[in-house]
This record gives sequence, C-alpha cells and structure tokens, in this order.
Amino acid sequence: MPAKNDGPGDGATPSKSEQTRALILETAMRLFQEHGYDRTTMRAIAREAGVSVGNAYYYFEGKEHLIQGFYDRIAAEHQVAVREILARETDLEARLAGVLKAWLDIAAPYHEFAVQFFKNAADPDSPLSPFSPESAPAREEAVGIHRQVLAGTRTKVPEDLKDALPELMWLAQMGLVLYWIFDRTEGRERSYRLAERGARLTARGVALARFRALRPLVREVHELFTDFLPGMAKALPDPSARPPAP
Amino acid sequence: MPAKNDGPGDGATPSKSEQTRALILETAMRLFQEHGYDRTTMRAIAREAGVSVGNAYYYFEGKEHLIQGFYDRIAAEHQVAVREILARETDLEARLAGVLKAWLDIAAPYHEFAVQFFKNAADPDSPLSPFSPESAPAREEAVGIHRQVLAGTRTKVPEDLKDALPELMWLAQMGLVLYWIFDRTEGRERSYRLAERGARLTARGVALARFRALRPLVREVHELFTDFLPGMAKALPDPSARPPAP
Repeated sequence: MPAKNDGPGDGATPSKSEQTRALILETAMRLFQEHGYDRTTMRAIAREAGVSVGNAYYYFEGKEHLIQGFYDRIAAEHQVAVREILARETDLEARLAGVLKAWLDIAAPYHEFAVQFFKNAADPDSPLSPFSPESAPAREEAVGIHRQVLAGTRTKVPEDLKDALPELMWLAQMGLVLYWIFDRTEGRERSYRLAERGARLTARGVALARFRALRPLVREVHELFTDFLPGMAKALPDPSARPPAP
Repeated sequence: MPAKNDGPGDGATPSKSEQTRALILETAMRLFQEHGYDRTTMRAIAREAGVSVGNAYYYFEGKEHLIQGFYDRIAAEHQVAVREILARETDLEARLAGVLKAWLDIAAPYHEFAVQFFKNAADPDSPLSPFSPESAPAREEAVGIHRQVLAGTRTKVPEDLKDALPELMWLAQMGLVLYWIFDRTEGRERSYRLAERGARLTARGVALARFRALRPLVREVHELFTDFLPGMAKALPDPSARPPAP
C-alpha cells in the first residue's frame, strides 16, 4: 500500500492512519473529560486534534463512534493485560480476580470521565450502553475473556452452561463497573475488594453449577438477561461472528 | 391536641398538618417533574404551594427530605396495594408477581420524574439512593413486604435464610426498578413482563434454597451486598427497629 501522505483513504500507510485515529480518539476522551460528553462537538475535537472536520468524520462517524472506539480500546488493552495471569493461574477464583483487577487498573485514568458519562451509558436502549447492539464488538471481546477464564481452569463446566456462564460472568463484571463508577475511596480500594469477593463468589457459584438441579435456574437467569437487554439476544446466536482476540 | 390554626408546631390538628405536608410534597413532586430536581428550590416549592418558606422547612428540612417523604409515601401506598393479593394468594410466584406489578402500577405516574431523577439516586453514597442510611425507613418497609410475601406461602424457607432472602428479593426488585426507569415501551409493558419472569425465577431460586449445598452461597451473596452497599449493613442488625406496617 503506497504511503505518500496522511489523507485518509488515499493511500495513507496503516500506521499513519492508525496514529491519526488514535490521536482523534485521545483528544476526544480528553475533551469529554474536561467539558463533558454532551457539550463536546466533533468540530471541537477535530480542531483540538489539528485535523480537518472531514478527516475526523472519516475515522469516526460521530461522537457515539468515538465512545465505541474507546470501548474497543479498553477491551483490547484488557486482553493484553490478562494474558500473563491467564497463562499462569489455573485456579478459577484467582483467574477471575486477576481479570477483574486488571480491568480496574486499565480503567483507572478514566474514572472521572466514567462518572459524568454514566448518565449516557446507563440507558440500555442507548447505543452507548454496554448492552446495545452497537457495543457488540467490545462486549464480545469482554465476554471472550471470561470464556478464556473458564476454559483454562480445572473446574469442570457443564456443557449446557458453556455459553451462559461467560455472559453471566461478564454481567457480574458490569455490576463491578457500576460500583466502581460511584466508588470514591482512595485508589478505588473498595472496588478492588469487591473484585476479590465477587471472584470468590462466582467461583463458588460455578462449582455449584455441577448440581443438576441448579442448571435450569442458571440457564433461566441467563435467558432472562438476554431476553430483556437489547443487543444481548442478538449477540448470542453467533458468538463466533467475531472471534475473540488471541 | 388543640386545633386552632394551621401554623405548624403550635397546635395544628394532625389532619390539617398532614394536609399541609401532603400539599408541599405533591407540589414538590410536580415541580421536580417540570423543572428537574436540581433546578427546583425549596423557595419555589413553598411559593407554589402557597406556604411560607419557614413552613415548608418545618415539614421538610430540605429537598432530600422531600424525596425521602416521597419514598415513604410510595412504600406506604405499596403496602396498601398488596394487602389483597397477599391475603388471597399462597403461591410464592403469584404473590411476588402481584407485589412487583402493584409497585409498577403505583410508580406509573412518576415515570418521567424517575428518568430524570435517576442520576441523583444512582450513586449508592447519595442520601437519595435506595441503599443509603437515609432511605432506611422506606427500604425497611419495602423489605418488610417481601418478608410478608415469603411468610404467607407454602414454600418452606430455611431458618438461616429467613433474613437474607427478603433483602435479596428487594434487591431484585431494585433491578426491576432500574429496568423500568429506562423502559420506553407503551404502558411499560416490558417491565410488567420482566416482573412476571423475575417472580418465576425468584420462586424457583427460593425453592432450590432447600438444598443445603446452596445455602452458604445465598448467604454469601447477601453478605456481599450488605458489606458493599452503604446503609444496607446498618439496616440489617436491627430489622425490628421499625416494624413493617401491618
């Protein structure tokens, strides 16, 4: 691919293009943090990033797409961050606690933004919600991490819960995220403790799922969430549509 | 008690006093709905209700207390509304579905308010959160309803879960409330369906709690919530401090 200039779509090298994309995304996140999501325009983001408005729109169709880009980046960073712990640990509780705490580490710089952005993302019908069809790529990647968490443990997971459990674990993680958003303790210390407690509890729950009597309940809880959260149902039928990053 | 005039604290009849209190509360709720909670002042509420500012402050120390008064009223109305179904039904699922749907009926006029008020109540550290120490009276009353739901059924509840289950059922109800806030379907039709599905699932869960292997998990889930939600822990040690309304 020729690499002559930095204009999008006219032969920019991927790396230059990726750099511009990252620059716009970082600028947007900074402006969102400083002025709030609602009050930040694409025009202001382009100006601050030193690109043309058309260029900004080339990379991101709008502010919502910037947020999706942000979600995707967090998900990708999380994938990298958990690699080591997932390669080393075989204990379910330790794996899950490691995964949850790695997420808290990565999200730390965005806490202030998350607090004010919450009102936009809390509505399950908003494209900015983690449950929306628009958030499916980032969600699939995040659910994929929980699939890895389970796959690499000695804990035996019943075949009929193989799909439901990772999604339920991700839902529990969303509970932790909600808690973290409102956590005002120094260094979000309580969120880290909740991550550990939650991991212990989840590991116990998964271990109990070996009881046949329980499985229909677990499946029904999972069905309830997928039936009532927009985008979740759609994400389910084809989990292989976008394979989780390695 | 002498009944000479309508000034507070100087001999108003309870009914006149209660009327003034109700008038202030209703006026406040209307102004909150029209202009938003944050932008409505006690002064504006007093003016609109035709009482002096001092009088308004006599009944409610501030806006937060108006919200608590509102929570208390919803809880009291709910108690009355569920009386009939709790007297008639012995099936756990039917009792719980009735209780949840009665809440949706009562809350219907306040849906618009709930949507915009959500950002104030979502923070568990806010006195306006349903999990706060300040909300304890309304919460205790609401948990009391779930205690009644369980007490009047044929389903046998293990002794060691008698305290935890009603609180967990109330937490599930808070999940429904969260869903309802964002429900834009006609007549909140999806929330009613979620109430039914949730009731079925909860009834199954309670039935499964007879398995000894499961009880520690239920207790631990309950402990996790009470340890991490401000006000919940405090509400627990003395559930009899404020007996639930009959």
